[in-house]
Amino acid sequence: MSGELTVSPPLIDECEVVPRTLCGPGPSDYWPSVVEALTRPVLTFSTDEYFKVVDDIRNCLKYVFQTQSDLVLAMSGAGHTGMEAVICNLLGPGETLLIAGRGIWDDRACEMAKRYGIKTVVTKVPPHTTFVEQDLEPMLRRIRPAALFITHGDSSTGTIQDLSWVGKLCQKYGALLLVDTVVSIGGAPFLMDAWAVDAVYTSSQKALSGPAGISPIAFSKLAERKIQTRKHDPPFYFDIKMLSKQWNCYGDTRFYHHTMSPPLMWALRASLMELCKETLPASWARHRRVMLHFHKRLSEMPVQFYVPDPMHRLPTITTISLPEGYDAVKFAKYMANELKVVIMAGLGPTAPGGRVLRVGLMGANACEEVADRVVQAMADTLSAMRRSKL
Amino acid sequence: MSGELTVSPPLIDECEVVPRTLCGPGPSDYWPSVVEALTRPVLTFSTDEYFKVVDDIRNCLKYVFQTQSDLVLAMSGAGHTGMEAVICNLLGPGETLLIAGRGIWDDRACEMAKRYGIKTVVTKVPPHTTFVEQDLEPMLRRIRPAALFITHGDSSTGTIQDLSWVGKLCQKYGALLLVDTVVSIGGAPFLMDAWAVDAVYTSSQKALSGPAGISPIAFSKLAERKIQTRKHDPPFYFDIKMLSKQWNCYGDTRFYHHTMSPPLMWALRASLMELCKETLPASWARHRRVMLHFHKRLSEMPVQFYVPDPMHRLPTITTISLPEGYDAVKFAKYMANELKVVIMAGLGPTAPGGRVLRVGLMGANACEEVADRVVQAMADTLSAMRRSKL
Repeated sequence: MSGELTVSPPLIDECEVVPRTLCGPGPSDYWPSVVEALTRPVLTFSTDEYFKVVDDIRNCLKYVFQTQSDLVLAMSGAGHTGMEAVICNLLGPGETLLIAGRGIWDDRACEMAKRYGIKTVVTKVPPHTTFVEQDLEPMLRRIRPAALFITHGDSSTGTIQDLSWVGKLCQKYGALLLVDTVVSIGGAPFLMDAWAVDAVYTSSQKALSGPAGISPIAFSKLAERKIQTRKHDPPFYFDIKMLSKQWNCYGDTRFYHHTMSPPLMWALRASLMELCKETLPASWARHRRVMLHFHKRLSEMPVQFYVPDPMHRLPTITTISLPEGYDAVKFAKYMANELKVVIMAGLGPTAPGGRVLRVGLMGANACEEVADRVVQAMADTLSAMRRSKL
Repeated sequence: MSGELTVSPPLIDECEVVPRTLCGPGPSDYWPSVVEALTRPVLTFSTDEYFKVVDDIRNCLKYVFQTQSDLVLAMSGAGHTGMEAVICNLLGPGETLLIAGRGIWDDRACEMAKRYGIKTVVTKVPPHTTFVEQDLEPMLRRIRPAALFITHGDSSTGTIQDLSWVGKLCQKYGALLLVDTVVSIGGAPFLMDAWAVDAVYTSSQKALSGPAGISPIAFSKLAERKIQTRKHDPPFYFDIKMLSKQWNCYGDTRFYHHTMSPPLMWALRASLMELCKETLPASWARHRRVMLHFHKRLSEMPVQFYVPDPMHRLPTITTISLPEGYDAVKFAKYMANELKVVIMAGLGPTAPGGRVLRVGLMGANACEEVADRVVQAMADTLSAMRRSKL
């Protein structure tokens, strides 16, 4: 057999990784309990442990999303599988999705929707602000979309959308409300049922401080009815009708849909248990307290907030404008390489001009000590860049 | 805020897991180096380490698939994302996919394809056999499909398909050849370029002995050309055009498509490095040697091979028929619970009758010692079930 080989084995060097503190818009550092969970034994489908982990994750998620809905599970993929699943399960070809845009993720939702023959209408506000009722009501009235897509926290702009009034408005016009909570869950109040949200997804590597690759998702009763009665079939991997059986959402099935990832199941369970143990109100308060501390310390530096209104500032991710003449990409690179603290430059609407930084203090890193480390590293970087004439 | 909560945090018990040897059709036990890799530091997009891990994985995969193609990467999801990606990237609505079926996975490929408006034609052989040229040529000539889908190893039947002649036949009729190697890669010879395979995917939790959740995939030059010139757009998450940029397949882009899972990237790299170090011929020979040892020991027991022709038997997974009166599900349950060895009952074509067992000796578990442990546990289970009158 070996005579037939046409490609030789590669020479792979060791890959050393310098330890850094991860304070970009994600991923965050893991909770210690998550590290321990990653190496737990392989879970095999149909064992008692497998079913318990599945049930534990669902029970935690009902609390974390604040919902009594049964249709709660996790997608086996990046946060983008959550985004694509809420869209392709709830809208079919020819239906209209209204997209309330202020960052890069709503652009992506638009791109995904178009691939399914869904009609898309985008309405925008300036990226350093958020939507008010008068921005959305005329659009809903005129377009009568099947659904509205909006992000709760936006990691490209550092804004948080007040959602308390959006669900009621959508109900008035017969639209389902689809919400991206990738960078808000655990870090800012979110109440799925109280706010009448119909579909929501989040990601594991932000304020949950777990590894990326498994993405919680939940649907309201209304959304569930639409899924059960829809005429179109979404891609197999995203089909919530089948996934609800794999996840035993109705307590009656243990269907095999695909092989789930044992380390990611264990890790998600561990990071959700951290949040359940701390409780949502305590975690929200901690993120807010650390944000205020960080913002107070920033006000001593020659930088500005990209988001002028404090009410619109996302507790988990802060967007900061550097003084004229500084380059955000070089700034972040210096901090990562010389000072071992990772932050990121702007993305989407905050990229042009090259002066916006994005700093995340989320999950395990939402504490004063890490905030102070970031401030110190930023101050040192400002001096170094000033000395070297940028 | 806490006053608004409507769902209380759940009480989650500890989840102890009894250590077991995993000898079902997958998942397998991890290599020790994979366990170590799972807890390596979080990889952040755009760092040098991230790019090195991406490049290392691609270089290993070219060797493992035996291809000089540049379009080689890993999907962020279960093996089913590989299956869905080869189908929806290469065929559009109205095109025809010929499916050569002998197990459960070709049924799944059919179900996936239909969701994209692809026409499907299924041709079958009995599940305990495999295809010969005369089974496929008349179909290819008559139907002129855009592609043929076939599994190399089939975990539901324990058969392995000789692929050495299939690619040439497909070329004669202008059909692309799509191959599932989920349970064969690393365990049985597979030569992508030499056999003229156009698209192939595999899974990490079988003979690679890694965790599920990240799935290698590769496309030939011919398949690549079809992807570049196609008229349809697949779902965003599966779009190989975009993923090729995220994975730097052409050495010129470091595009962000979605957030990849750091523990799964590290783990896949580690399990591929095990295979590159051992070399393919040595790994294939080890799997074959252990299979022959296992089959010899089985011949001393009152069981039969489900696959009569030794040439058709898959080296990684053996299907075994129990004597009349035995229940395969109860048999596997007794072995897992009392003897801590996991094997599985039949699935798909091997489920009816309830007497077929599926035993996997793959990756880290492909060794004589584990084979002997399985034989001993099977013998003990046969006695116990005989004593208790089944």
